[in-house]
Amino acid sequence: VNFVSSASKGGAGAVEIVTIGDELLLGFTIDTNAAHLARTLAGLGVSVVRRATVGDDAHAIGAAVREALDRTGAVITTGGLGPTSDDRTRHAIADLFGRTLDVDEAHLEWMRQRWRTRFKTEMPEANRQQAMIPAGARKLDNHHGSAPGIWIEDDAGRWVAMLPGVPREMRGMLGDTLLPLLVDRLPSQGAIRSRTLRTTGIAESLLADRIDRVPGITDGAEIAYLPSPDGVDLRLTVRGKETKVADELLTSVASRVRSTVGKGFYGEGDTDLASVVLDLCRARTLSIAVAESCTGGLLGARLTAIPGSSDVVVGGVIAYDNKIKVGLLGVRDDDLAREGAVSEPVVCQMAAGVLARTGADLGLAITGIAGPGGGTTEKPVGTVWIAATLGGETRAHRMLLWGDRDEIRRRSAQATLELARRTLVGE
Amino acid sequence: VNFVSSASKGGAGAVEIVTIGDELLLGFTIDTNAAHLARTLAGLGVSVVRRATVGDDAHAIGAAVREALDRTGAVITTGGLGPTSDDRTRHAIADLFGRTLDVDEAHLEWMRQRWRTRFKTEMPEANRQQAMIPAGARKLDNHHGSAPGIWIEDDAGRWVAMLPGVPREMRGMLGDTLLPLLVDRLPSQGAIRSRTLRTTGIAESLLADRIDRVPGITDGAEIAYLPSPDGVDLRLTVRGKETKVADELLTSVASRVRSTVGKGFYGEGDTDLASVVLDLCRARTLSIAVAESCTGGLLGARLTAIPGSSDVVVGGVIAYDNKIKVGLLGVRDDDLAREGAVSEPVVCQMAAGVLARTGADLGLAITGIAGPGGGTTEKPVGTVWIAATLGGETRAHRMLLWGDRDEIRRRSAQATLELARRTLVGE
Repeated sequence: VNFVSSASKGGAGAVEIVTIGDELLLGFTIDTNAAHLARTLAGLGVSVVRRATVGDDAHAIGAAVREALDRTGAVITTGGLGPTSDDRTRHAIADLFGRTLDVDEAHLEWMRQRWRTRFKTEMPEANRQQAMIPAGARKLDNHHGSAPGIWIEDDAGRWVAMLPGVPREMRGMLGDTLLPLLVDRLPSQGAIRSRTLRTTGIAESLLADRIDRVPGITDGAEIAYLPSPDGVDLRLTVRGKETKVADELLTSVASRVRSTVGKGFYGEGDTDLASVVLDLCRARTLSIAVAESCTGGLLGARLTAIPGSSDVVVGGVIAYDNKIKVGLLGVRDDDLAREGAVSEPVVCQMAAGVLARTGADLGLAITGIAGPGGGTTEKPVGTVWIAATLGGETRAHRMLLWGDRDEIRRRSAQATLELARRTLVGE
Repeated sequence: VNFVSSASKGGAGAVEIVTIGDELLLGFTIDTNAAHLARTLAGLGVSVVRRATVGDDAHAIGAAVREALDRTGAVITTGGLGPTSDDRTRHAIADLFGRTLDVDEAHLEWMRQRWRTRFKTEMPEANRQQAMIPAGARKLDNHHGSAPGIWIEDDAGRWVAMLPGVPREMRGMLGDTLLPLLVDRLPSQGAIRSRTLRTTGIAESLLADRIDRVPGITDGAEIAYLPSPDGVDLRLTVRGKETKVADELLTSVASRVRSTVGKGFYGEGDTDLASVVLDLCRARTLSIAVAESCTGGLLGARLTAIPGSSDVVVGGVIAYDNKIKVGLLGVRDDDLAREGAVSEPVVCQMAAGVLARTGADLGLAITGIAGPGGGTTEKPVGTVWIAATLGGETRAHRMLLWGDRDEIRRRSAQATLELARRTLVGE
């Protein structure tokens, strides 16, 4: 296949992405597919050189895909493969290639069966168009939904891969079906390699300051600072080098940056801090219970989002109302009255109380003012107490977090996981 | 100004958006600016008809902007106005318009002062290029950062507005400076009006089938189906009509679609189902407690994400481990042993148990198999029991949900909120 490389950086393969959907164009849905595609393709040394978004309009889809084909010869689309009349991708691209659309009878029958077993009903007629494939095109299996993807190619080797718009289906099909197909066709040349170091609890500009103070620390690699309410990710990238050289360079830069960052570093890649905490507990056969006020279950949800968390997490108490803090966690009425619900004695009693209630080993507690209401001069919105109790010892911290209600809650849960991690490793 | 309308739908003003940055193209940053621009412009009756993303490369920026100008004549860019050498937007677009870049001495002096007062240091020389403006172009004030935006226009009335890439600065400049400028130049013509109907618990194709069966139901409006793990949103759009006419048309179409959809409809716009449940409780002075197994706190987190939820939500128990179900919620050991943790008696006892523990009025419970492990032939992954207890009566449902662990958990929480809503309204 012809990966036209003129527009790409470092001579690697190049593709363009066209994402399709009125909801994307009108801004009602944020386009996460394009970012996922770009990140995944970069790992194969394939550069995304242009991205376009058009609405659910056959003319606009055809125009955008034709221009991308003329420039780059390799195009991935997402969206517009659904069952409704505004799903026009297969029609527009079949037209562009001068092909008819034919029903794939085997796929149609599979879809009918799927409806009978899964939804206990006959397949609606609207779904029929999901079994239509341009003549001479190849079906890309979808193990996560009903619409197949489509690979279509012309005599000059120019191709379009059509993927669904639902992120889970798109990601599944990309990994299961499209990537293996692309790997077979890729020219062997230098890749883009990157590595992400995850940090939490240190401000972006402070991190940049620490790193800038060490001359040459990132030589040969690019560094990008990616802040979010969970912390700041540092992405290191090496381009156009032979894979082994790039990997070695990344490893040495990463190691220097890690030691410069110090305690705030908790993992690499897409490691979730909740996973790190679960692994540390699992290694020592410790169980976790949570006691949450302002986060209302978010910390428990973070921990139990990780598959296999049930051998570590026993559960806990959502103590949103003070009566629950007293009745279920044994927080003392007089401390609540004197110090307030957002205070050191209360957070410590919550952590101890949930251990007494559940018999777990590590107790984590959060109480704070997430806003927008409820702040005072002494305890403004963003004031949050967190605590971790393990082996009879309790660590508690007062924080002043910024952002809106959602961010303050997310930062609270993340900070409590970091407190748990440091407690477990004795930092 | 010439809002070329050939590419637009319904004759309203049309613009294209070009977002600029390697971070966007490589997928390390999600492009939220484009969505914000599109939503904001739609309110003025301006359609975004195409969106493109290019990297920090002067040639690519120039090419994308030129193509957009040729098609639509009106372009908004974001990004590439920063102080570093990879910020090429102003240079590329000045070249395209055949203009030189001149230093705006007044702005340069303002920036120097800002560094002295804000950062207590002299401005780095790198920032100098942020004061460079193409000859004949107009500066757009930035009250939220140091780089001004730029408005550039040719003799034919074709224009480009360059905004910064940092979302907070972009949004500020859009609202403060660009929108007022656009409003003055807009042709007086119809707006785009849209309305979103939110549904849950009904498959997308089943909804489409119901709606398609009523001839003419959406006449004069477009309908888009927007599925997510929380349900399917139906977005109705009317274009190019006079505002009052468009609003009346939307109201009548929305009312017909609502009655066709029936029970699955829970709200409009960006209404959160958790808010609907809280409002229903608040109106009857009812309090809520949750008992969560497989969702691990997600339902509590959903409810308490809503500001002001503390007058309704008392809290609850995360009963992830069976010992917690027995010890804290009073679930019977023999039912657990005979029926298993994912069963009707257990979910009913969880809902009743959390009411007994907390004294709340409405008890919501979830127990299920979120996967990827733990499924059996009788109870495959996705099997979830949910229950709602109110005034001594309990409703319980068994569901078979699809998707990965995250989706099954999200769908479980949403389905439980919907069960709560129907219980409260007596549906």
